[in-house]
Amino acid sequence: MVFLTRKEHFNGAHCLYNEMWSEEKNKEVFGKCSNRNFHGHNFDVYVTVKGSPHPDTGFVMNAHILSRIIKKEVVERLDHKNFNLDVPELTGIFPSSENVAIQIWNWVKPHIQGCELHCVKLQETENIYVEYFG
Amino acid sequence: MVFLTRKEHFNGAHCLYNEMWSEEKNKEVFGKCSNRNFHGHNFDVYVTVKGSPHPDTGFVMNAHILSRIIKKEVVERLDHKNFNLDVPELTGIFPSSENVAIQIWNWVKPHIQGCELHCVKLQETENIYVEYFG
Amino acid sequence: MVFLTRKEHFNGAHCLYNEMWSEEKNKEVFGKCSNRNFHGHNFDVYVTVKGSPHPDTGFVMNAHILSRIIKKEVVERLDHKNFNLDVPELTGIFPSSENVAIQIWNWVKPHIQGCELHCVKLQETENIYVEYFG
Amino acid sequence: MVFLTRKEHFNGAHCLYNEMWSEEKNKEVFGKCSNRNFHGHNFDVYVTVKGSPHPDTGFVMNAHILSRIIKKEVVERLDHKNFNLDVPELTGIFPSSENVAIQIWNWVKPHIQGCELHCVKLQETENIYVEYFG
Amino acid sequence: MVFLTRKEHFNGAHCLYNEMWSEEKNKEVFGKCSNRNFHGHNFDVYVTVKGSPHPDTGFVMNAHILSRIIKKEVVERLDHKNFNLDVPELTGIFPSSENVAIQIWNWVKPHIQGCELHCVKLQETENIYVEYFG
Amino acid sequence: MVFLTRKEHFNGAHCLYNEMWSEEKNKEVFGKCSNRNFHGHNFDVYVTVKGSPHPDTGFVMNAHILSRIIKKEVVERLDHKNFNLDVPELTGIFPSSENVAIQIWNWVKPHIQGCELHCVKLQETENIYVEYFG
Repeated sequence: MVFLTRKEHFNGAHCLYNEMWSEEKNKEVFGKCSNRNFHGHNFDVYVTVKGSPHPDTGFVMNAHILSRIIKKEVVERLDHKNFNLDVPELTGIFPSSENVAIQIWNWVKPHIQGCELHCVKLQETENIYVEYFG
Repeated sequence: MVFLTRKEHFNGAHCLYNEMWSEEKNKEVFGKCSNRNFHGHNFDVYVTVKGSPHPDTGFVMNAHILSRIIKKEVVERLDHKNFNLDVPELTGIFPSSENVAIQIWNWVKPHIQGCELHCVKLQETENIYVEYFG
Repeated sequence: MVFLTRKEHFNGAHCLYNEMWSEEKNKEVFGKCSNRNFHGHNFDVYVTVKGSPHPDTGFVMNAHILSRIIKKEVVERLDHKNFNLDVPELTGIFPSSENVAIQIWNWVKPHIQGCELHCVKLQETENIYVEYFG
Repeated sequence: MVFLTRKEHFNGAHCLYNEMWSEEKNKEVFGKCSNRNFHGHNFDVYVTVKGSPHPDTGFVMNAHILSRIIKKEVVERLDHKNFNLDVPELTGIFPSSENVAIQIWNWVKPHIQGCELHCVKLQETENIYVEYFG
Repeated sequence: MVFLTRKEHFNGAHCLYNEMWSEEKNKEVFGKCSNRNFHGHNFDVYVTVKGSPHPDTGFVMNAHILSRIIKKEVVERLDHKNFNLDVPELTGIFPSSENVAIQIWNWVKPHIQGCELHCVKLQETENIYVEYFG
Repeated sequence: MVFLTRKEHFNGAHCLYNEMWSEEKNKEVFGKCSNRNFHGHNFDVYVTVKGSPHPDTGFVMNAHILSRIIKKEVVERLDHKNFNLDVPELTGIFPSSENVAIQIWNWVKPHIQGCELHCVKLQETENIYVEYFG
């Protein structure tokens, strides 16, 4: 069993604001992230698959195909997008990195063949990242 | 003459859209950056000053004071802000990294004492940065 | 179950010297790290917690609160400190990165609420890091 | 149980070409990596061991000894080498990062004493890495 | 005057061997780089242009157009190529990073319009880079 | 004219304390850096030389020779050393990064032959670096 990880990149905007709460409560919980005019990040997404290297190729999975899947299923949906306004699958849920990572898992999983999806890691800033293992 | 550089960090959102142009022209020139719902970045700002090390301290400038100036004059104004909507000094100009770097220079310059402001570098993504030398 | 990691930073000094051993044995085992005048590092500490995203916030844990805990419990105790001389909890044990990581776990653990402490990672140089999972 | 990781570096060249396949099939599967004149990478290898810190040293394993093992068993064999032509142990298997990582595990494992080899991670480019846990 | 830098990436192989010299002299001067079976690197290329931000766009130059030029003129020619065998413009000269950087300047320069090419930086490994200013 | 830069690494300890001043004044000016038990850093040093690529080698200067000079003249003197106590050339001057960079220039300059020393850059933390051009 070998694990293969591929990184891709996108930029997005979001704001964290709970409509059920007052302005004050939002500010207290989400701090500067509650700015309703949005802020944004350079996100790095790492997708890890696991399996045995195929005898014909030495690959767990072709990294170029994995790249293409991430670009089509994740980057096209999120790059230069506003997660609160532009992404139907994120409408009505909080676009925290945790929830975005779970959604990325759901987008990528059906397209992994011949090996197994292991982890989605989403790096939001140099200092914060989340990981989801399904 | 020694050069001292201090890095600070902020996250912001912007969109690049010229109101004098059609939707099509904006898309052609600015591509995905023209999304009017905004996108964002993790910006790193590097401020460089130059001068002679002071005999009492060995410092061109106290890096903690330089950090405090950048935090007060730049990070407080731009962190978790929407450059198109939340920053008066950027209203009516294009919030391209070039123009933001020039504005940062103008904010920082009056506060540098005992040495000289040399450069403002603004890193927008891992792959793009701009530098302004006044 | 989602994992959230927050990185913080501190600078410290230490020396690795076993008082039960001769100078020669110390030099043989610890090499340059046995210099009794100390040397130091820029340490990065990564604290990982795990849990379910809370429906009100989308957060496993508020990353700002996690940051505040690490700063108060770890950075304040270790930043710009001499691990051999200035840190009571490290007195009498070897301030190897392994032992410092275990101590960081013990400092942080009582303050994690609503989710679970998963890992403390301590990066000593670009080439060396340790991880402790409790 | 603490985990200790040491990173080392080497540069190598390889090409991915299955002699059983046509030129077209190789191009289709391996893309630009099938160039028979070779291409290369700056590889980072991370070796992780696990165990209890030794009471005399605070170390799971002496990181300098771990470094020496990686340099002798891995870097000397692979640095500035052509994996298809210069490395007997890789002859006849595909020098994919997956297979190279497995081979690195086999080279390093007999030399780890007093603790346990846990993981070999091989970073091929900034965007692709593989991990092998034995 | 603002400076804009765009980074792109490619992987290549080369060997440094002076045909006018003996095997011994080559080994003495070029060390492991003289392996005639080639070795390789992950190269990062940074292209810097300088000019005034255009009033319609805020750009010294559109970074996407700069990216496209680098990809077409540099990456297509060098990515996954053997600099000694596959690149006509490098035939008969030494494919040192210095000479490759000069060649990149010559490829890029005719395509920069409306501002001025300032610098080509070529990062060969984490520890070595060259810069050429024309 | 091409510029070649080589990076090397060392770890050191220092404290910033002006013996002519009171404890309070030292604390006010140097903050946590005035801890007389020392703190330390992972320093990266970048040495840049400039010249024309030599027709026989394509090199401004052999990067391995430059590396050897930095290791012998800088790393051996500073690595795992206390800059206040262990380094005669730094005795009696303030071991600020500015002054250490100037000293590194003086150590390296006599050994650069066939091209010209251009810059010494000393990175003290991820957020602070100094540059000296002679």
